[in-house]
Amino acid sequence: MIGVGHSRFGERQDVNVKELAFEAVKEALNDAGLTPKDIQYMCLGSIGVWYEEPLPAVAVAEYCGLSGAGLMRVEAACATGSAAVYSAYTTVASGFTDLALVVGVEKMREVDTFTAVELMGRAGSYMWEFENFGLTFPGYYALYATAHMNRFGSTEEDLALVAVKAHKYGAMNPLAHFQKEITVEDVLSSYVVAWPLKLYDCCPISDGSAAIVLASEDKVRELKIDTPVWIAGIGASSGTGTLAYRSDFIGLDATVKASRNAYKMANIEPKDIDVATVHDCFTIAEILAYEDLGFCGKGEGHKLVREGQTEIGGKIPVNVDGGLKAKGHPIGATGVSMIVELTKQLREEVKPTSRQAPMKNYIALAHNVGGTGHYCYVTILKR
Amino acid sequence: MIGVGHSRFGERQDVNVKELAFEAVKEALNDAGLTPKDIQYMCLGSIGVWYEEPLPAVAVAEYCGLSGAGLMRVEAACATGSAAVYSAYTTVASGFTDLALVVGVEKMREVDTFTAVELMGRAGSYMWEFENFGLTFPGYYALYATAHMNRFGSTEEDLALVAVKAHKYGAMNPLAHFQKEITVEDVLSSYVVAWPLKLYDCCPISDGSAAIVLASEDKVRELKIDTPVWIAGIGASSGTGTLAYRSDFIGLDATVKASRNAYKMANIEPKDIDVATVHDCFTIAEILAYEDLGFCGKGEGHKLVREGQTEIGGKIPVNVDGGLKAKGHPIGATGVSMIVELTKQLREEVKPTSRQAPMKNYIALAHNVGGTGHYCYVTILKR
Repeated sequence: MIGVGHSRFGERQDVNVKELAFEAVKEALNDAGLTPKDIQYMCLGSIGVWYEEPLPAVAVAEYCGLSGAGLMRVEAACATGSAAVYSAYTTVASGFTDLALVVGVEKMREVDTFTAVELMGRAGSYMWEFENFGLTFPGYYALYATAHMNRFGSTEEDLALVAVKAHKYGAMNPLAHFQKEITVEDVLSSYVVAWPLKLYDCCPISDGSAAIVLASEDKVRELKIDTPVWIAGIGASSGTGTLAYRSDFIGLDATVKASRNAYKMANIEPKDIDVATVHDCFTIAEILAYEDLGFCGKGEGHKLVREGQTEIGGKIPVNVDGGLKAKGHPIGATGVSMIVELTKQLREEVKPTSRQAPMKNYIALAHNVGGTGHYCYVTILKR
Repeated sequence: MIGVGHSRFGERQDVNVKELAFEAVKEALNDAGLTPKDIQYMCLGSIGVWYEEPLPAVAVAEYCGLSGAGLMRVEAACATGSAAVYSAYTTVASGFTDLALVVGVEKMREVDTFTAVELMGRAGSYMWEFENFGLTFPGYYALYATAHMNRFGSTEEDLALVAVKAHKYGAMNPLAHFQKEITVEDVLSSYVVAWPLKLYDCCPISDGSAAIVLASEDKVRELKIDTPVWIAGIGASSGTGTLAYRSDFIGLDATVKASRNAYKMANIEPKDIDVATVHDCFTIAEILAYEDLGFCGKGEGHKLVREGQTEIGGKIPVNVDGGLKAKGHPIGATGVSMIVELTKQLREEVKPTSRQAPMKNYIALAHNVGGTGHYCYVTILKR
């Protein structure tokens, strides 16, 4: 990766989807020292069900001056951004192109909250569970939260601590949707969405974009880029759409499989990782991620957050950009945003420096889930 | 490619989208001698705006027994199928997986014709031309048809000849949407959709699926596959969403660029090609394709069809499966279907043999356009 860009996340009624994408594209191209005409392939991550351009790739490419480049859109529900990075990665790694651009963008606040929740609910297995039983994603993750609490003794306070950590770092991140700190009491007293998940256990519905320029090894040398960050491994897996087919509700198989494949490809172990971004669409999701990624043993995730081990200064800083919970979750942008953040972490250029994780091995991990483990992408970065 | 499968195209109210996809997947896996568990990555091509599963990849993967494999959906408007093949190709060529599955599926007849035409019209640049001027795709291609007729003297009869050829071969293809021959008079007397394009100048709205198993060179050897067909080159390009930005209406720049890149990668020339499938969503599109792909000079496309040079026995047989015009055009399936057909042609196993093109160099070309050259993918196959 030789260039990264990131818009402000949040309510973005000030721009249309093309303008929103352009904010990140412009910054990424400037960061790489390139112009739109240098890009041979562009991969857009967007589920695009909310707005006037239902098939947004052409419109975005035209607005960003990229017409002529090879072009496609990818979708993997909430893991769309990481799937787009994967696609651009294989495009370069296969020798097809030397320079590829990934753009993740979503403008979800074009619709109201109820419509957004309904559209997202259809990302599972619509015809069976959603249509017949009416579960939407807060409900799905509530099933996982209650199973984890029942089996391992995690509590509502543990879940709240995940949100408090997210807001602590979100408050330091000028690009975050929410930039204010909250307390455990704030979380516990917010209204119940699907017990035990309360409003402050849920990520917001956000607008936003992120972009990355990927280059081949030859191109990195040719351009004399001195701060490249490399993709050392990617793992991808999927789970059943129908939750009734899952063997248990205490972890996501797709995360386990995707992460083991990524570790193997990068030839690293979880303990080698300096900083991580994990998919915390709901607070319980972050606790499951700790366990499924191997940051701790099964059933110990809530202890990591209790002990502050996933803050800066702890064993493994996680979501020190605010995570989906406070930074926001514009679906197609999220996975790309995670890798933009980690690239800046690995370059040690995060500002304010209170948000910069200490680097030992210069290895970072991004974990992006679609649905309730319907998809998972794990990406390992190395400087 | 070590396995291919193809459903019957047409009105498929007998199956849902998952069952429709499974028909092609089952045949492709059987053809390759594999089971679902062997597949490490699945790429679904589907624009999926018509039916109950708006994000269909998980539902299709689960139904086909592929949960666990890496998974994503790609979209490139009407070039979606070819973009999915490209994605699976780079997945294998980059060394990420040894075995990948591409599935193209669309079930468009869930909606009525007017809704389908409106949804497809949004695949251009919705906020400008579609919203303000109301052009849908028959209108866009009519602009190209009138420009070509005015500049090069092509006639309504020339356009009709493209449809007659498509139906001639469609009548021999048991998987085609339309299996009856038509005459020039039938075309000319059908009702005008957007002059000079009449009903029989337009492809139908179809349901259908197609699937391909791609394997690495090592895997082909390991499995002792004796009939592999290789992807020798892929070219991808795009054009402006806004037609007003195009320099002329007599050809598609995206086709010219994508094909030249594909020829270069495969190290071949147009004259080396034994058989081709080109994007004939409207009859004029096939004539433009002949020219843009370099099968003839600019402004000579209609002469090729007049002389029968693109039938079996002519210089270069094109769309001898019936093309989009008679075989049908279930968007996500189309690009995959083209490559399934060409794989069978290169294996010399097309039945009836009256539809088998003669092989000299064992090289074939698939040309798949999204929108009016908003996207283009050209894929070169070699045995």
